[in-house]
Amino acid sequence: MEEQTMKRVMNFYPGPSALPLETLEQAQRELLDWGGTGMSVLEISHRSKEYSAVHQEAIELLRGLYGIPRNFHILLLQGGASLQFAMIPMNLLGEGDAADYIVTGRFSNNAYKTAKTLKEVHLAVSTEAEGKYFRIPKQDEIHIVKGSVYCHLTSNNTIFGTQWREFPDIEGVPIVADMSSDIFSRRIDFSGIGLIYAGAQKNLGPAGVTVVLIRDDLVKRALPSLPDILSYRTLVEKNSLYNTPCCFCVYMMRNMLKWVEKKGGLDFIEAQNKKKAEILYTLIDENSPFFLSRVEKESRSDMNITFNLTDDTLEARFIEDAASEGIIGIKGHRSVGGIRISIYNSHGVEDIERVADFMRRFANKHG
Amino acid sequence: MEEQTMKRVMNFYPGPSALPLETLEQAQRELLDWGGTGMSVLEISHRSKEYSAVHQEAIELLRGLYGIPRNFHILLLQGGASLQFAMIPMNLLGEGDAADYIVTGRFSNNAYKTAKTLKEVHLAVSTEAEGKYFRIPKQDEIHIVKGSVYCHLTSNNTIFGTQWREFPDIEGVPIVADMSSDIFSRRIDFSGIGLIYAGAQKNLGPAGVTVVLIRDDLVKRALPSLPDILSYRTLVEKNSLYNTPCCFCVYMMRNMLKWVEKKGGLDFIEAQNKKKAEILYTLIDENSPFFLSRVEKESRSDMNITFNLTDDTLEARFIEDAASEGIIGIKGHRSVGGIRISIYNSHGVEDIERVADFMRRFANKHG
Repeated sequence: MEEQTMKRVMNFYPGPSALPLETLEQAQRELLDWGGTGMSVLEISHRSKEYSAVHQEAIELLRGLYGIPRNFHILLLQGGASLQFAMIPMNLLGEGDAADYIVTGRFSNNAYKTAKTLKEVHLAVSTEAEGKYFRIPKQDEIHIVKGSVYCHLTSNNTIFGTQWREFPDIEGVPIVADMSSDIFSRRIDFSGIGLIYAGAQKNLGPAGVTVVLIRDDLVKRALPSLPDILSYRTLVEKNSLYNTPCCFCVYMMRNMLKWVEKKGGLDFIEAQNKKKAEILYTLIDENSPFFLSRVEKESRSDMNITFNLTDDTLEARFIEDAASEGIIGIKGHRSVGGIRISIYNSHGVEDIERVADFMRRFANKHG
Repeated sequence: MEEQTMKRVMNFYPGPSALPLETLEQAQRELLDWGGTGMSVLEISHRSKEYSAVHQEAIELLRGLYGIPRNFHILLLQGGASLQFAMIPMNLLGEGDAADYIVTGRFSNNAYKTAKTLKEVHLAVSTEAEGKYFRIPKQDEIHIVKGSVYCHLTSNNTIFGTQWREFPDIEGVPIVADMSSDIFSRRIDFSGIGLIYAGAQKNLGPAGVTVVLIRDDLVKRALPSLPDILSYRTLVEKNSLYNTPCCFCVYMMRNMLKWVEKKGGLDFIEAQNKKKAEILYTLIDENSPFFLSRVEKESRSDMNITFNLTDDTLEARFIEDAASEGIIGIKGHRSVGGIRISIYNSHGVEDIERVADFMRRFANKHG
């Protein structure tokens, strides 16, 4: 077999997804001997001073860059967003308490169904239509139960490609948001938020670390008699070191946050993300109906650009031709079909311009 | 600053701990371009064919090398042993069911306390004496409650350095064993076992993946109305891909298992582990009471060799001198003090001989 020279592709998987090349190169350099310890970060004790420093640095970088208020605790956990689906009602809903769920896609529906296996929860609104979810609800569609402890929503729906422009006003009820696919992608207003959670594997690092941002009053109201590993109280008290974390994942997240800081912080990231989405949506609209966006315009996601080819017999060809130009991971989710281009923090504008160029040529050739 | 050449130390941390150099070198080589994909394994979708193949290979290697019977399912999860402390009673104990716990150290006590927050469980025996646990109970000390669904034990106690020689006979009650610090370190008899769980970060790979081996009849009796992420039924049905796993951790575990296979499989590992422990215990006993083992002889662990220096003013010097010879991570747990040398699968006999040589010189100089 011929010796291969390294060729990096453009990876648009919905998550786990691309990481900045610099963060991977740093990990590669340090993999056998980390910071002169003579050990890999994969081998070092989570109680060592070296790991403790990285753990704390990741937390502080996230707080500083994302502008997380001081009355929020930052947790770095395991188990993914799915474990939070269970932990949130287990911690926050006592006997007789109720909470609301807004359902705008498959994962928000999973969060709602999981909560229902554990506690009494209420559906505030669902935007489901014929099994699909192509829009975010309007403020006046949301109906909250009296005395609701929290209102859960999913800020970005990876499968359908919808996103809340801004968080709704829930009349003082704290919002609990699954932000797995748009955390740290733009500035947000924390004033209505009680809790945010997200798997890191789209915008913050590799799979294996779950970020939870929880307001202090919600930690205080967490039920006292839970297993320690499922208790926000204990996890906050122990600074996410109640048991062994995925040390390597936290280290990679720290590298990613340092990279963002060097690039110009969240303002740079936000501007870049807006620009990237604009390039693709403009191209789709200009080439409509060859490319067909099914998402309501004001609900479009800046993270997951979904569309169909009106002539769906061309979709396989589109994916194949894209792959031949190094554009990978763009097949739509099986429940909606079509194409999905997931453009998270690691992708530069130049990558998206190459994708747009490919799409334009494809439309010209086959349109 | 002077350019440093890489110098690997001998890392005896209790976990996360050393990994075989070859597995780290492989990860380093492949970190920017994995198997010609043009992506890192840190970036690839958990639904890709490339990741699926590694996931399955890790499971099959573990089954083959460890001799796991066909009526056991193999799960690769997140959350560590601590999450299993909760999942076991949540899944296996219904209304009116009881289970037994054998307490031989801090982690088995945590498992017992966690179960008590959730269900009705019974203490079969504790070997605690003045806050310490220096022995494993005898068969006739174990008192099982009538109709017990399972009996939980911790096969190796990392902090105190004790280990079950073999699993006890619990009159047909399935044993549920936390094997976080001795899984895959020697052959075991699966005939009395219902469930085994272990964090990977001592004998199987890096922190971030938790192995669960569960007998089919226990999956079938798992309660039906649990959140999916906490349900053995769902996790078995989805082959541990209900949600995104720590893909990189599973990849590293696969690399580690391939390394074991190449070395000669579990027979090689078992013989090497016995030899390593024998070298250190022989040296301790020959230099008693300069080195003082407080663990009952027949309860000694082959994984964590704990001892004190009778003149405890010498302990800090011992740790410092060891570090100067590249022997790292040997300070005893704060609850017992002294020295702990954790010798997991990655350490070769030659490493242990170097440690023994150091100890002999230290004893001769200060004894």
